Amino acid sequence: MIPAHVPERRYAIFAEGRFEGAKTAHGLLRYGKDEVVCVMDSAPAGRSVLEVAPDLRRDAPIVGTVEEALAYSPTSLLVGIAPAGGRLPDEWRDSIAEAAEAGLEIVSGLHQRLAPEFPKVKVWDVREPPDDVPLFSGEGFGVGPKVALTVGTSSAIGKMTATLEIERAARERGVSTSFAATGQTGIVISGWGICVDAVVSDFIAGAAEQLVLEAAKTSPDLILVEGQGSLGHPAYSGVTLGLLHGSCADCLILCADASDDEIMAGVPRPAVSQAARLYEEVASLVKPAPVVAVSVNTRGLEDGEAEEFVAKLAHETGLLAADPIRGSAATILDAILEAPKTGATKR
Amino acid sequence: MIPAHVPERRYAIFAEGRFEGAKTAHGLLRYGKDEVVCVMDSAPAGRSVLEVAPDLRRDAPIVGTVEEALAYSPTSLLVGIAPAGGRLPDEWRDSIAEAAEAGLEIVSGLHQRLAPEFPKVKVWDVREPPDDVPLFSGEGFGVGPKVALTVGTSSAIGKMTATLEIERAARERGVSTSFAATGQTGIVISGWGICVDAVVSDFIAGAAEQLVLEAAKTSPDLILVEGQGSLGHPAYSGVTLGLLHGSCADCLILCADASDDEIMAGVPRPAVSQAARLYEEVASLVKPAPVVAVSVNTRGLEDGEAEEFVAKLAHETGLLAADPIRGSAATILDAILEAPKTGATKR
Repeated sequence: MIPAHVPERRYAIFAEGRFEGAKTAHGLLRYGKDEVVCVMDSAPAGRSVLEVAPDLRRDAPIVGTVEEALAYSPTSLLVGIAPAGGRLPDEWRDSIAEAAEAGLEIVSGLHQRLAPEFPKVKVWDVREPPDDVPLFSGEGFGVGPKVALTVGTSSAIGKMTATLEIERAARERGVSTSFAATGQTGIVISGWGICVDAVVSDFIAGAAEQLVLEAAKTSPDLILVEGQGSLGHPAYSGVTLGLLHGSCADCLILCADASDDEIMAGVPRPAVSQAARLYEEVASLVKPAPVVAVSVNTRGLEDGEAEEFVAKLAHETGLLAADPIRGSAATILDAILEAPKTGATKR
Repeated sequence: MIPAHVPERRYAIFAEGRFEGAKTAHGLLRYGKDEVVCVMDSAPAGRSVLEVAPDLRRDAPIVGTVEEALAYSPTSLLVGIAPAGGRLPDEWRDSIAEAAEAGLEIVSGLHQRLAPEFPKVKVWDVREPPDDVPLFSGEGFGVGPKVALTVGTSSAIGKMTATLEIERAARERGVSTSFAATGQTGIVISGWGICVDAVVSDFIAGAAEQLVLEAAKTSPDLILVEGQGSLGHPAYSGVTLGLLHGSCADCLILCADASDDEIMAGVPRPAVSQAARLYEEVASLVKPAPVVAVSVNTRGLEDGEAEEFVAKLAHETGLLAADPIRGSAATILDAILEAPKTGATKR
């Protein structure tokens, strides 16, 4: 949600019964700038975050009740898990109400909006788009900083993670960045953004453009836009292309993995080299945006296999390929920094 | 709006001050199946539709007031014009309220929804999507009839007109069709459909798939899907691609014109042959859909120029090209009927 500048939060993360698989909770712990004072999940209560999930990089106590969480003086309760069916279960409602009564802001990335459920407290429904998103205007073509966008050969392939790892590499290098979040977890992590798939279709590109214009306001060296979906995902390709054109990207980082699972409904993943070429060609209808690197998700592979797979993709595509988790995003950052800023396509 | 089967309407078309440029009014007169009993526009009142706009193919009296319109026993008032700024002007409100008080249904394709403005009467806000559009599921891959979708080198290039002319050619040939409308004018013309650019982005493809599933229910020989936007239109490309993948099209008709105006914000129209190739390649990520014909909009050209231009596009693309308005859509229909039904892309 725009605007970019929000108060700092001290989060208690509500993850009752499922902290282990809680994507938004994990994202906030791993990449968020806001403080996390505790996690609420009664089964592992008494242990700590790093005891339960050692890869999350920062620790916090795990507690079993709202009352215990309040002892850590949170400002906000993050609903860090997604219920089956997308509706708020009754057993969560009591805990959220208790936190709200204690004066906490409720932060939720659920599809179901919580503001109407808790009308008397401060609720940030992260998926709710601003109500004044304009149509795409072309103003984004004039944005000063270079804009890099992650795209993928499928959805759920690690685009957000790649983007945040590139941001981390930039921070370590002293390159200033603005991360433009486009999905609920990214928005919770960065404290602002627009959930582009929740915007009315006419305004997808306009929302992406507004994000980039907003990100440019701090005059960063680099704007990193979190990608969504995939050009070949039959359910989400519209969001992907609206984001590609609307963000006025100067270059693309193609995220790929070693899976050959179908995207959905029998539709196969495209070859990485075909995907790279097609993203470039479709982008260039509006504004050239070369794919400058392949960010490889090697989850599930052994170290040796992972190295081979990264090398294979580099060979196949003729592009730099790197694994930002097992390795580092530093070389991907180099490729982005070396890419020229492009202008809109001209006749 | 789904469902497909709606009562027949007798329309009075409200077009005060601007009947001449009223796109939805003209579309309904030219292609609609519902009766049009009169048009309301006080300046040309007393004349007839064909006196003012001879190319509209069917006549109706033009009247100056709601009272006069009521004498023709309409069931519905169509707000047939779009106000500057998208809000309902006060001077229209009185007329619409008068019609509503007389018991007429109000039919509106405005961005602004009229149901909340006139809570006590029957309002059909054509742009309002159904509230239960599901995500794309892949069920559309199994649709029985062949699905043809119009696409374009730019927006506002005549995709709806081409689709409706192909429908007319099919009717004359005894080929049964179902026209799946995706924009407000098409929906008013056919009496059902979903305005896909008004759907939340996550559901564009799902909406397109629902349209095709609905259109298949009458078991037509052919489903004709009205296209939207353009793959190279920076503001609307997301809608275009969501519709392309979601409709599970078997073949495409590429709409082109003789203009070399920019699409918007300096972005040029792509070459017709490039557009054809790129639509095919992007479609085939999900389901092959060859471009089987170019439908040429020759508005503004002299007859001889038009013929040359159509021939030039046929030569450039290697495809059948035809002008459905100056000529006929019969050959385009042939090309569609000859195209095979395709299946979803397999590995």
